[in-house]
Amino acid sequence: MKVAVIGAGLIGQAWAIVFARGGCQVRLWDGDSAALARALKLLEQQVHELENKQLLSDAASVLARVQTVSSLEEALDGAGYVQENLPERLEVKQEIFAAMDRLSLPDTPLASSTSSIPASAFTEDLPGRHRCLVSHPVNPPYLIPVVELCGAPWTDAATLERTRGLMEKVGQKPVTLHKELQGFVLNRLQGALLREAFRLVESGCVSAEDLDVTVKDGLGLRWSFMGPFETIDLNAPDGVQDYCTRYGGMYESIAQEQTGTEPWSAELVADVDQQRRALLPGSELLNRRIWRDERLMALLLHKKQVDTADLK
Amino acid sequence: MKVAVIGAGLIGQAWAIVFARGGCQVRLWDGDSAALARALKLLEQQVHELENKQLLSDAASVLARVQTVSSLEEALDGAGYVQENLPERLEVKQEIFAAMDRLSLPDTPLASSTSSIPASAFTEDLPGRHRCLVSHPVNPPYLIPVVELCGAPWTDAATLERTRGLMEKVGQKPVTLHKELQGFVLNRLQGALLREAFRLVESGCVSAEDLDVTVKDGLGLRWSFMGPFETIDLNAPDGVQDYCTRYGGMYESIAQEQTGTEPWSAELVADVDQQRRALLPGSELLNRRIWRDERLMALLLHKKQVDTADLK
Repeated sequence: MKVAVIGAGLIGQAWAIVFARGGCQVRLWDGDSAALARALKLLEQQVHELENKQLLSDAASVLARVQTVSSLEEALDGAGYVQENLPERLEVKQEIFAAMDRLSLPDTPLASSTSSIPASAFTEDLPGRHRCLVSHPVNPPYLIPVVELCGAPWTDAATLERTRGLMEKVGQKPVTLHKELQGFVLNRLQGALLREAFRLVESGCVSAEDLDVTVKDGLGLRWSFMGPFETIDLNAPDGVQDYCTRYGGMYESIAQEQTGTEPWSAELVADVDQQRRALLPGSELLNRRIWRDERLMALLLHKKQVDTADLK
Repeated sequence: MKVAVIGAGLIGQAWAIVFARGGCQVRLWDGDSAALARALKLLEQQVHELENKQLLSDAASVLARVQTVSSLEEALDGAGYVQENLPERLEVKQEIFAAMDRLSLPDTPLASSTSSIPASAFTEDLPGRHRCLVSHPVNPPYLIPVVELCGAPWTDAATLERTRGLMEKVGQKPVTLHKELQGFVLNRLQGALLREAFRLVESGCVSAEDLDVTVKDGLGLRWSFMGPFETIDLNAPDGVQDYCTRYGGMYESIAQEQTGTEPWSAELVADVDQQRRALLPGSELLNRRIWRDERLMALLLHKKQVDTADLK
């Protein structure tokens, strides 16, 4: 399977790794040839790092499957799937999707990595609009496997199914959204939790540090291998229905206090920011991101090992 | 340090393990002596299981530190901390706290495990109300370290500090709540996320299964070692303030669609329940809970190992 990755920024590089690790032939293209050359170097470093961390087994052959190309035509030639990663501007998406639709094989899925623009906004007038969709990753997708697949109203089911199949084949965890909605699923869930988190700090109930502890040493443990529905399913003797009978009233009552939609005030944001800076100086952010990625890699390796043990 | 654990149900047993594992002498009491004998057997099994999973190192000496006693007086005699775990009924809490206040050393913290009744509701008229609080665990506390500490308005700071210190000493992760509020912090965060999760299923956007994937293979990974504030702090070049400048508008806009407070409808709950039963028959719930606890144990061991490596 040949995959075209369009745009060689951080997300494009990461997708190239995902597809090459999954056995695909990847053609990576960017309009800026200097950026393309830099991208290839960074990508090589990342692939070796993943091999060091036991998250891929043969860096050399993974890298051999990634080829940079100097034209969009060349990238799309014979491609069975296209992943686009250009800047988040509507006119950029409209222009590149028109070009991709013109230059690619007729039924090849054309997917955008956009996190904020629905596919309907940049595909409506295309002859091949039925094969266009959003495949929204979490950065970086070679460490965070979920991918949200969301078509426009005119995207055909076969496109979504083929894309889902490809994502599974390369080891990602696709989820299918049946309607276009802002924030897709992941950022809507994150937004709901963040809003309550900010509210609790604003009302003086808890510090930002203790709020993080509540998640990382509490809620987040089960969610890292089960998700919220399976969590409640196992938290009452007879499952979800039983859980909602026991605790639905409590959550309904709490929800009455969770309806605010106002912007986070400048004072509140500054307060949380200051609390974070007291825990981690701004000069340490970059090192902490490296730490985060190492923790993510270690967690993925752990999950891979216990998943394998589960299957035995 | 002597710790009294009052009530020998699942939570009482689990607390006995936490304190004994942490080096405390534990006296476990229950009004039902047959229940107390059963509890000790279950507790022994659990301690051996934790030793098998490398989550404690000397089962025999842990068990030697747990003593069952036949009267409340004996349990409280000389205790430096008391953890109460009787049924979740106001009059039960009022009665036991009056007795504990009468029978224990004057400044010993008296803590309830209640998840739904604020300390102010059952301590107002006690001579020793300054040393009463809620220490709310997540079940089972020997696998999920967070403990929410929440006093009544009259609980003194020293009581909260001593309790926090004890929890840290025995390896738990205490968080301090500065106001009484329903659901404390953990269930308020869980409620906010669950409400959006149910809403997304109700509106036909996503299946319950895919929603769980979005968390367990996406959001929940970082939250299992960072929490939501550190996550966003690292997700924009200059931290929380920068993140909120970039994405605050998106979350504000999403929040407009997240204000519903109505009860989860019977149809919606039945739908999610059916989706779960299609994935896991009701007859498998018990086995799956064993699986969950094994996964939690493996995750904790993993976190312990990487935390230790971080410190090097």
